[in-house]
Amino acid sequence: MATLPKKAEEFIDWYLAVVEAAGLSDKRYPVKGMNVWTPYGFRARRNLDRVMIREIEATGAEAVEFPTLIPETEFAKEKEHIKGFDAQVYWVTRGGSSPLDVNLVLRPTSETAMYPIFALWVRSHQDLPLNVYQIVNTFRYETKTTRPFVRVREIHFFEEHTCQVDEAAATGRVASNLAAFGRMATAFGLPFVAVRRPEWDKFAGAYYSIALDIPLGGARTLQIGSVHHYRENFARPYGIRYEASDGTTRYVHQTTFGLSERLLGAILAVHGDDRGAVFPTAIAPFEVVVVPIPAARAGDRPQQVAAEIARRLTAAGRRVHLDDGPERPGAKYYRWEVRGVPLRLEIGAREAEAGEAAAVDRLGQRAVLPLATLEAAVDRTLEAFDRALAERAAASFRSAFSLASDLADLAASTTVRQVGWCGAEACGHRIETAIDGALLGVPEGTPPVDGGSPAACIACGTTDGLRWALAGRPL
Amino acid sequence: MATLPKKAEEFIDWYLAVVEAAGLSDKRYPVKGMNVWTPYGFRARRNLDRVMIREIEATGAEAVEFPTLIPETEFAKEKEHIKGFDAQVYWVTRGGSSPLDVNLVLRPTSETAMYPIFALWVRSHQDLPLNVYQIVNTFRYETKTTRPFVRVREIHFFEEHTCQVDEAAATGRVASNLAAFGRMATAFGLPFVAVRRPEWDKFAGAYYSIALDIPLGGARTLQIGSVHHYRENFARPYGIRYEASDGTTRYVHQTTFGLSERLLGAILAVHGDDRGAVFPTAIAPFEVVVVPIPAARAGDRPQQVAAEIARRLTAAGRRVHLDDGPERPGAKYYRWEVRGVPLRLEIGAREAEAGEAAAVDRLGQRAVLPLATLEAAVDRTLEAFDRALAERAAASFRSAFSLASDLADLAASTTVRQVGWCGAEACGHRIETAIDGALLGVPEGTPPVDGGSPAACIACGTTDGLRWALAGRPL
Repeated sequence: MATLPKKAEEFIDWYLAVVEAAGLSDKRYPVKGMNVWTPYGFRARRNLDRVMIREIEATGAEAVEFPTLIPETEFAKEKEHIKGFDAQVYWVTRGGSSPLDVNLVLRPTSETAMYPIFALWVRSHQDLPLNVYQIVNTFRYETKTTRPFVRVREIHFFEEHTCQVDEAAATGRVASNLAAFGRMATAFGLPFVAVRRPEWDKFAGAYYSIALDIPLGGARTLQIGSVHHYRENFARPYGIRYEASDGTTRYVHQTTFGLSERLLGAILAVHGDDRGAVFPTAIAPFEVVVVPIPAARAGDRPQQVAAEIARRLTAAGRRVHLDDGPERPGAKYYRWEVRGVPLRLEIGAREAEAGEAAAVDRLGQRAVLPLATLEAAVDRTLEAFDRALAERAAASFRSAFSLASDLADLAASTTVRQVGWCGAEACGHRIETAIDGALLGVPEGTPPVDGGSPAACIACGTTDGLRWALAGRPL
Repeated sequence: MATLPKKAEEFIDWYLAVVEAAGLSDKRYPVKGMNVWTPYGFRARRNLDRVMIREIEATGAEAVEFPTLIPETEFAKEKEHIKGFDAQVYWVTRGGSSPLDVNLVLRPTSETAMYPIFALWVRSHQDLPLNVYQIVNTFRYETKTTRPFVRVREIHFFEEHTCQVDEAAATGRVASNLAAFGRMATAFGLPFVAVRRPEWDKFAGAYYSIALDIPLGGARTLQIGSVHHYRENFARPYGIRYEASDGTTRYVHQTTFGLSERLLGAILAVHGDDRGAVFPTAIAPFEVVVVPIPAARAGDRPQQVAAEIARRLTAAGRRVHLDDGPERPGAKYYRWEVRGVPLRLEIGAREAEAGEAAAVDRLGQRAVLPLATLEAAVDRTLEAFDRALAERAAASFRSAFSLASDLADLAASTTVRQVGWCGAEACGHRIETAIDGALLGVPEGTPPVDGGSPAACIACGTTDGLRWALAGRPL
């Protein structure tokens, strides 16, 4: 039971210690940055996937799976794209003991795997929109320091790819994706900002990129996903055309929407505290842990009652763990606290006698729940827990941004900064130098700080073409 | 609407045509043997996975996921294993533009990925049994002709790996796996035979291998899975040891259980007919298709009733497709028949008026179902369909094996053959030569043909150490 570092003081060390203490990932695998999903971590991942699948399928997308390996010939067709990824892909060059005729790339993302096939699938306007997604692993030969979930070399990845009749329809799909992500983020209790990335930081091959960023304390940010509008940039080299209702042949307009296991990292980073992980109910590997006191006396009333409670809550659809091993209760409480379980139910002789369970949620709220109506009481308790957790995250989010009106002011930033920007690239780079980070881009919709209209570009002082932009230090 | 080849006459052509006509897999991807899971095929796969997960988790196994890439150094530790796989693995040799320090193998199976980590996870007898599984893709550089689902280079794979306290416990896990597979096969309506493979055909590194084989007509068979007992064969090179309750240090005994997308191929091959795919309800991408007649007149009663039926059955948990497009009903019937949907509900003006649905199952059974109690009627209809489908497969299975008592008799085999065998490898090879196929091995439990005890070895005529064995021509 080593003490965790303090989140507020040593954020990165705290994060690494929480992932390890919660038993979510094993990074002792003998390839750096390729980690093992433990049973506990895999449960969280499965729940994360379930939410993603639910929300994306609600928008009419269908699941598919394309191969992991992409021939070099296809990979190289879109010139910006290959330039963007060339340095960070793994190459398969041999099958058995023979060199391959055409080298194969381990997909870093699947545009170049999917689009030759989309060209076969899309023939007429009746085939559109084509909205498909896959949840697969992708691979990047990272040269930066790797971190579980946040920067890894094998990435658990969600990617939607769509073909639309025209630019307006593609813009509509971008909006639909942002709305779907909003619903996911609500399930995770995770406030975020959608930011249109500057030209020099958009996805390789995109017309524009909207990133989903979260603040992590100080000026730190983490990109947890993105939505891209490709216009015809990929449709032209891959020949994805259709016959319109007027008989003309046109290129489709494409979009993509990407998320990854980073979401799990973000959930840990945002909700976790100095006592370990804190999972929102939707993601929690176990929603409820039941602990009989004293432990491991089979036939005792507390033991019997605890087992019955676990059975009932499981039947009600809850993910429940009955911890009836021989350890002392304190050790169990510590374990499930570090592991972030939303609700613990303790059953002692007194509770068993009174027909009650002593409930403690992961934020420390205590209550006594009647066994007679336990399922409903657990529903209410977990709803209140999720609400409190989301409110804590929302309060932290609100204080994570502040205005800045002077470049000199940026260096000492202790939040993400909202600045006036004229839109010029040169000014953008001056802002990046000043904060020693990145111009994240222009927020979609209402910016996080209510500062009225910007007065001038923080870099050049012009009052023309002004917009709010965010600047921070991406992890 | 091209006619399919006849299953009884041109089995392989028929199989390939059904996969294509049903729209389950797209093999136009530009790497041979790496196919695209279409939306329809992916739905079948998801249902297949659901059954596998349900049955394996019922035996206490937990899901994990290990990395796709295995360092050459780990891969080479178990000598038989590397010899078995060396010629058929893909090698990653470059990251970006640099050669890797250690080449990486794309996993053909995950023993050598998992076992170095198992050595860290298993410390004491309290950590045992360790029963974990993963559903991932594996890769084999196949040199034989590839076939969708049956022989591919990227394989959708299920693999359970366990560590047990001793050989007896490992033998028990083998039995538990065989029972779990029996439950899966029941859900798929798929009769199979479990066969202990001969020494010369066991898994690379195994103590023994039990294969799950199905007959495919003629003497053809298809291995759809396997369960292996490893004894300490991997535990020793990978150092997987534990402290027993008596304080001694021992090696674990290991088992594995493997299944793959071949199961989907087997389901298609066994249940399909000259009119296309036939899916058992548990696997069907859609369980029910609802067709209003005439089509595409919004506001018509048949259209309204069909939509309401689709809504109700979906709410009852059924996977339903409402086909209310502009095509004529015949084209829709043809499409969903080829695609193997178990039940079609037709709603014309007469049915809408009478409060009924005309039901036709994929085996041609017709019935009229009352809309008032439709959910229950559909339940009963699908249960009857699954039963009839399983019975048809069982009848076909019973006639797929016959006794043979003379080597000369084997060449002209029109079934899988059950033969007396003395157990000697030389005799095994003579049987294989005679049938121009393989000695599949010795059936576990009751052999498929009730032939009493074997009289003599079909190859050498001895009456010592006799057992029944099966011989056939694996696909």
